[in-house]
Amino acid sequence: MKRILSILLAVVVSGVSAVAQQRPPAISSPDVHPDHSITFRYFSRTAKQVTVSGEFLKAPVAMTKDTSGIWSVTVPPVKPDIYPYSFSVDSVQIADPSNTYIFANERFRRSIVDVPGDGPLVHSLQNVPHGKVGYRYYKSGTLGTTRQLLVYTPPGFNPNGKTKYPVLYLIHGGSDTEETWTKVGRANLIADNLIAQGKAKPMLIVMPYGNVRPAPMPDFTKDMVNDIVPFVEANYPVLKESNGRAVAGFSVGGGQTLNIGLTNPDMFAYVCSYAPYTATDEFRRNFTDWSPDAGKLNRQLKLFTISVGTEDFLFESVKQNIAMFQDKKLAVKPYIVPGGHTWMNCKQYLATTLQEIFR
Amino acid sequence: MKRILSILLAVVVSGVSAVAQQRPPAISSPDVHPDHSITFRYFSRTAKQVTVSGEFLKAPVAMTKDTSGIWSVTVPPVKPDIYPYSFSVDSVQIADPSNTYIFANERFRRSIVDVPGDGPLVHSLQNVPHGKVGYRYYKSGTLGTTRQLLVYTPPGFNPNGKTKYPVLYLIHGGSDTEETWTKVGRANLIADNLIAQGKAKPMLIVMPYGNVRPAPMPDFTKDMVNDIVPFVEANYPVLKESNGRAVAGFSVGGGQTLNIGLTNPDMFAYVCSYAPYTATDEFRRNFTDWSPDAGKLNRQLKLFTISVGTEDFLFESVKQNIAMFQDKKLAVKPYIVPGGHTWMNCKQYLATTLQEIFR
Repeated sequence: MKRILSILLAVVVSGVSAVAQQRPPAISSPDVHPDHSITFRYFSRTAKQVTVSGEFLKAPVAMTKDTSGIWSVTVPPVKPDIYPYSFSVDSVQIADPSNTYIFANERFRRSIVDVPGDGPLVHSLQNVPHGKVGYRYYKSGTLGTTRQLLVYTPPGFNPNGKTKYPVLYLIHGGSDTEETWTKVGRANLIADNLIAQGKAKPMLIVMPYGNVRPAPMPDFTKDMVNDIVPFVEANYPVLKESNGRAVAGFSVGGGQTLNIGLTNPDMFAYVCSYAPYTATDEFRRNFTDWSPDAGKLNRQLKLFTISVGTEDFLFESVKQNIAMFQDKKLAVKPYIVPGGHTWMNCKQYLATTLQEIFR
Repeated sequence: MKRILSILLAVVVSGVSAVAQQRPPAISSPDVHPDHSITFRYFSRTAKQVTVSGEFLKAPVAMTKDTSGIWSVTVPPVKPDIYPYSFSVDSVQIADPSNTYIFANERFRRSIVDVPGDGPLVHSLQNVPHGKVGYRYYKSGTLGTTRQLLVYTPPGFNPNGKTKYPVLYLIHGGSDTEETWTKVGRANLIADNLIAQGKAKPMLIVMPYGNVRPAPMPDFTKDMVNDIVPFVEANYPVLKESNGRAVAGFSVGGGQTLNIGLTNPDMFAYVCSYAPYTATDEFRRNFTDWSPDAGKLNRQLKLFTISVGTEDFLFESVKQNIAMFQDKKLAVKPYIVPGGHTWMNCKQYLATTLQEIFR
C-alpha cells in the first residue's frame, strides 16, 4: 500500500516539478524505541529555534537541525503512557505535523505519543470483548441546538433486553471536545479491560460536549439535567434512579461535575470530580453560604470523591475545596496522588472511579 | 466559558512569564463570511513566505504579513461546500494551526473549511431524525490483528427487531482513515437527509480501514470477504444475500471496490466505484486477460457504476477502465461529472449511490 501511495503521489506531483523539487523529505515522528526513549523530528530549513514540550518533560528540549533541514532530538526513556506534546517553532506552538494522532481540543495544538508498556496497561487495546462507542445527535432545548455526544455501550449490550444498565456521565476538560475522553483518555478501552476483569460493572458511559458557548457554565448543568439525561433514558435501557447514575469530569468538567452532582443529589448517587476547576460564578453561587443537610446528602450520595495530583497547578485550590466540603460534614473521599493536571492522571482517576461506582 | 478558559490559561501561564510574553496573539482562522468569502490567518514573525492552497483555488494564494506577525488573505466567495485546505510556510505544507477541524488522513496535513449554503446542502446537519455512528473493534483473522471500523445505523434502527437491513460497505481513499467518510464526507448526514426525504432506503453503512500494511492490497479484499462482512452479519440484523450488500469506495478505495465487487459478484449485487485508482498489481491480475461470462455477471450485478470528474487527474485512466469493462460487455453505468479528485465530488457520488442501491 505504501508503494501504491508513493506511485499515486508521484503521479500527482509529476505535473508540478517545481513543487516536487521543494517537497520536504519524508520524516517519521515520533519514533518510540524499545527502551521507551522517543525521537521527535520536524522539517524546516528556515526556522531558527525548534523545541519539543511534553508532559514527560520538565522543560522544553531543544531540537537540532541537520544539513537537510531536519530538526530532531531523542529524549530519554519515559514511563509507558499516552502523552500530549507539541513543538515550538520560533516560539509558535504547533502539533507535530508528521503525527496524525492529534489531541482532540479546541485551543491547544498538541499531538499524542503512545508509549506502550512491556505488558498491557489499563488503557491498552487488549484481547478482551469490546464495547462500542456511538456518536449520536441530541436536541438540546436548553441550548436551542442539535449537539453531538458519545455513548459507550459495554460488551454484550442489548438495547432491547431486560437488563437495565447504570450510566456514567463523563465530562471533558475546558476546551476539550466530546471526543477527548475516548481519543486521549481511552475511556472505552479502560472500561473494556476493567469489565473483562470483573473489576467494573457493565455500564454505559455518556460523553457529552461540555463547552457551552456563548452561554455561561450554568447552562451546561441545565443541558445535562433537562436534555442529556432524558435523551439517554429515552433511547437506552438504563436505570432511571439515582443509584443508576454517576457524574464525573476533569478540570472545568470537574467543576461542572460538582455543580451538577451536588445540586441534584436526587438524580446522581455518585459524584466523582477530577482536579476540579472551581473559580466560577456558578460554583460560588452554589456553595458559598451553602448549608446542606449533611446527614441527608451523605445518605443520598453513595460515593463522593475528589481526585487531584500533588503536582497539579490546582492542587491548593482543590485541597481548599475538599476542606470546604469536609467543613460542611460531607463524606467526601479525597484521592491525593502523584502527578499533575494531565490526562495521564485522568485515566487513573477514571480507572479508580469505574471500580467504585454502581457497587 | 471562553472567559473561564482565559482565566484558567492565565493561571497556567502566570508561572512562566517569559513564555507569556512570547505568546502569539489569538487569531481566528478560517473566518467564513456571509458572502462565502473566506479569510485565512497564520501567525509567524520569522516565516518568509506563507501561502494558502485549497480545493476552491486554482493555485496557491500568497498571504501578507502585518506588523504584528499575522499573515492573512481573504479569498473571493466560493461555492458552498466542505473544502480541504492547507498552508505552505516556507514551502512546508501544514494544516491551519488555528482550526481544530482536521482532515482525517495519514499523509496529508490539511484542514477543513465548511462553507454553509443559503439553504441546507445534502451533507448539512438538518432537522431530521439522525442515525448513529458506532466505533467498533473486530478481529481480522486475515491480518492477525484487531482493527477499528465505523458502522452507521439509520434512524429507528432496532438491532433486535425483525427488520433486516441492507449494508453498504464504503471504503476511503489511500492514506485516509476509517473516519474520513464521516468526518470529511459526512456520509452519516447525507444518509440521514436522503432517508428522511424517502430518497434512500434505510441501510447500514460500514466504513472499514482500508490501508493494509505492510501487506499489499489483495489482503484487504480477503479482510473484507472473510472478516468484515462476517463480523457485520454476526452482529447486526442484516440481509445475508448479495441483493442486500453493496460496496463503494473512492480513489484507492475505488480500486479496492472493483477488486472486491467484481471478483465476488455472488456476495455484492451493487458495485459503485468513485474515481478508482487501478494501477495496481491486484487490478492487473484480476482484469487483464479477464473473460467474464458477461450475461451472468450482468444478471448478478443489479448496479455497477463508475463515477469520475472531468478535472480528476485520473480522468483518462478511469475512462480507459470504463471502456475496458464495456468491451467485456459489462453493463457499467458511467457517471461523468464536473470536478476533480476531491471529497466535494465524493459526497455527490455517495449521494447518487445511496439513491440507487437496494431498490
